[in-house]
Amino acid sequence: MLEELKEKVFRENLQLVKYGLVVLTWGNVSEIDRERGLVVIKPSGVPYETMTADDMVVMDLDGNKVEGKLNPSSDTPTHLELYRNFDDIGGIVHTHSSWGCSWAQAGRDVPAYGTTHADFTNGCIPCTRGLTEEEVNGEYELNTGKVIVEEFKKRGIKPTETPAVLIHRHGPFAWGKDSHKAVENALILEEICKMAYRTESVSALCDNSNIGIEDYLLDKHYQRKHGKNAYYGQKL
Amino acid sequence: MLEELKEKVFRENLQLVKYGLVVLTWGNVSEIDRERGLVVIKPSGVPYETMTADDMVVMDLDGNKVEGKLNPSSDTPTHLELYRNFDDIGGIVHTHSSWGCSWAQAGRDVPAYGTTHADFTNGCIPCTRGLTEEEVNGEYELNTGKVIVEEFKKRGIKPTETPAVLIHRHGPFAWGKDSHKAVENALILEEICKMAYRTESVSALCDNSNIGIEDYLLDKHYQRKHGKNAYYGQKL
Amino acid sequence: MLEELKEKVFRENLQLVKYGLVVLTWGNVSEIDRERGLVVIKPSGVPYETMTADDMVVMDLDGNKVEGKLNPSSDTPTHLELYRNFDDIGGIVHTHSSWGCSWAQAGRDVPAYGTTHADFTNGCIPCTRGLTEEEVNGEYELNTGKVIVEEFKKRGIKPTETPAVLIHRHGPFAWGKDSHKAVENALILEEICKMAYRTESVSALCDNSNIGIEDYLLDKHYQRKHGKNAYYGQKL
Amino acid sequence: MLEELKEKVFRENLQLVKYGLVVLTWGNVSEIDRERGLVVIKPSGVPYETMTADDMVVMDLDGNKVEGKLNPSSDTPTHLELYRNFDDIGGIVHTHSSWGCSWAQAGRDVPAYGTTHADFTNGCIPCTRGLTEEEVNGEYELNTGKVIVEEFKKRGIKPTETPAVLIHRHGPFAWGKDSHKAVENALILEEICKMAYRTESVSALCDNSNIGIEDYLLDKHYQRKHGKNAYYGQKL
Repeated sequence: MLEELKEKVFRENLQLVKYGLVVLTWGNVSEIDRERGLVVIKPSGVPYETMTADDMVVMDLDGNKVEGKLNPSSDTPTHLELYRNFDDIGGIVHTHSSWGCSWAQAGRDVPAYGTTHADFTNGCIPCTRGLTEEEVNGEYELNTGKVIVEEFKKRGIKPTETPAVLIHRHGPFAWGKDSHKAVENALILEEICKMAYRTESVSALCDNSNIGIEDYLLDKHYQRKHGKNAYYGQKL
Repeated sequence: MLEELKEKVFRENLQLVKYGLVVLTWGNVSEIDRERGLVVIKPSGVPYETMTADDMVVMDLDGNKVEGKLNPSSDTPTHLELYRNFDDIGGIVHTHSSWGCSWAQAGRDVPAYGTTHADFTNGCIPCTRGLTEEEVNGEYELNTGKVIVEEFKKRGIKPTETPAVLIHRHGPFAWGKDSHKAVENALILEEICKMAYRTESVSALCDNSNIGIEDYLLDKHYQRKHGKNAYYGQKL
Repeated sequence: MLEELKEKVFRENLQLVKYGLVVLTWGNVSEIDRERGLVVIKPSGVPYETMTADDMVVMDLDGNKVEGKLNPSSDTPTHLELYRNFDDIGGIVHTHSSWGCSWAQAGRDVPAYGTTHADFTNGCIPCTRGLTEEEVNGEYELNTGKVIVEEFKKRGIKPTETPAVLIHRHGPFAWGKDSHKAVENALILEEICKMAYRTESVSALCDNSNIGIEDYLLDKHYQRKHGKNAYYGQKL
Repeated sequence: MLEELKEKVFRENLQLVKYGLVVLTWGNVSEIDRERGLVVIKPSGVPYETMTADDMVVMDLDGNKVEGKLNPSSDTPTHLELYRNFDDIGGIVHTHSSWGCSWAQAGRDVPAYGTTHADFTNGCIPCTRGLTEEEVNGEYELNTGKVIVEEFKKRGIKPTETPAVLIHRHGPFAWGKDSHKAVENALILEEICKMAYRTESVSALCDNSNIGIEDYLLDKHYQRKHGKNAYYGQKL
């Protein structure tokens, strides 16, 4: 069942290793088949070296395991909550990549400092509020998803325009139209977090507080890549 | 004698190279056969490129060489002291990995800043007191082990819950139920030390002093991975 | 048409990946055939893994596509403006390499701190002024090229002596007598930006403000590699 | 002539690439045959990818080329000055490795912060004074060697005990009993410079000024590896 999708999700999980975004069994990638309402996700705690496409787990959107001999990623309820609320996304990635986690642990939004960021999204990369003690002690992973959805609603930002978030004290989630794009976004997020830290540091060393991309430049780069009249890349 | 264990300890020593935790001949991995009371450990100062499983040295817990043509790691007395005092551990790793050493050289405990840390241990990663001049000039490596044991006793922390320590002005030791788990813990420790430094830096750049994971979140992540009702990974 | 040059430009684009200067589809390399007035450049948004020499696009200096089934890099007008104004350069590289972008995003010139820098150029590496809103909303990529040319004119520096620039809030462009040399210069630029940051940091940690290479040492190293009586390398 | 030594010096030059200490044509390794008074050194400005053992250049101690079709490294006079003055060294390495250069450009000695450093040398790693304008405009590379020798004499330190130096505003030289050991020392130097920076940073982030290894610990580690009664490694 869903053999092609399992193969694809498996391959995209391995990309996390190739891109240096995960070590050991950390991280997980999923993709949804919207027509059937089924999600394929990495199993929990299985080493990437020995994992096979057949180890992928199939879940429905209510959290029932539909196929698979292994437990799904313990972060599955977060993935499902995002699929239920963000209609236009098809793939999700969670990692503990070093720069993303460092901004998340510091509890900071990542400011837009340049065109690399503007090519990715049209505003800052949000860091959620922290989960309350009740939320943590309750359905923790589900609540993590709810806090993400709440953050996007509260700020009035769209998951299609801002394809990543930092969970407070935790780390990044990224998404996209499919798992392939989601993994690319997780990689770009890490690059942007690293670059933002370095930009602040280079700036601080000469007491320069004039950083932050100008609105018109942010918009220009975002639109040339993602807008209606985008001219980056190939028309396919 | 203990051929399988020698093969395993050899392989785990090579993992240190693969994970980028050691250069040249630095670092050493050991594992104990608790039934026979024998420890297999890397020889001293042998390059990883030319080392073979047969070069591993077998020691008893009193520090006598039982088998092996080479000298054991000069840190062997530290390993043995830990095996004698920490009953539930089966493998030990010592490295001079860069981030671990940097925190050790600064003489700082690594604070718990996020869930990556909480997945590893339920408190800070301790840095020992410095050895006194007498301890250094006496049985130095044995005393290093004693200072670790003293630190855990003094702080009331358990080696099964906190599987790593930083030796003041020196570097990290990590351990686990076997050498494989110990090597994984050495890698995680390095990731956590790197992330903690970056978290403090990202935070300092915006004069944000609100860092440090909340107790309930620390506990949640620790328990979901290591507690009685842990649900991370697969039931085997 | 221009098959050899397409093969070369293709190969040099792949060098960006090998040197760690780009991820995904970021970055682009071009080279000009001055006799024919034609420029070969990477297509826009094509992954390096699947790209072939045949995908390279041939442009004339007025911005007309002369050959190629794909769209050229969206940064093509910047390349062309530089070829039109900097007579002595034959190859151009644009990347979003992390250290170059970080200095660009901070809006800082890279000061000459040592002989690695002096081996590369005889002054600082300039960061341009930011583009105005009008320039961004107009012919953006062309205006980016114009701002680079303006910066070199205003400062009275020569593109043959300073083979790289940082675009404000954006990132680096580097060039050379051909695409091979341009790629090397992009790599050196990244090394220099990294080293300059580290130099300032190492210095700040001990409140030492005495950094910056002395003029006579800057000149010596620049001349021994690039001057009339250069004695670095081989006479070919 | 000296075919074996040329092969060895060639191989050790390639190690610089493998260890990530050089890019492009940067860096050079030499070794001396003390009996014949001849030095084998890398040619100037030749890419590591295409270099062969046969490209190595043979020099006598007065700076005459004895064999080789290529120009020797432009840093050859520095190597020769060190061989003439430091009787007990057999191999020399010069690199522009990033951390070593950063400390050199900041003009700072590298303080002894921990046992990784103490395993390497029994004091700080010295940074030379800057060369004067006259020294730079005169026989620059020879004078670089003289300034190193002067620095060791002035400070009363021995090149056999301190196998590396930082040239002010320039970068590291390292040496050893042969070229193999010199390359290892260049790698260790880079690790130590990186770790020293990180130690100061980790310390600064919590306003902790208590760093610097205690004398008795410095001495213990140095002696256990290099002293008369050293017990690290194997007796061969």
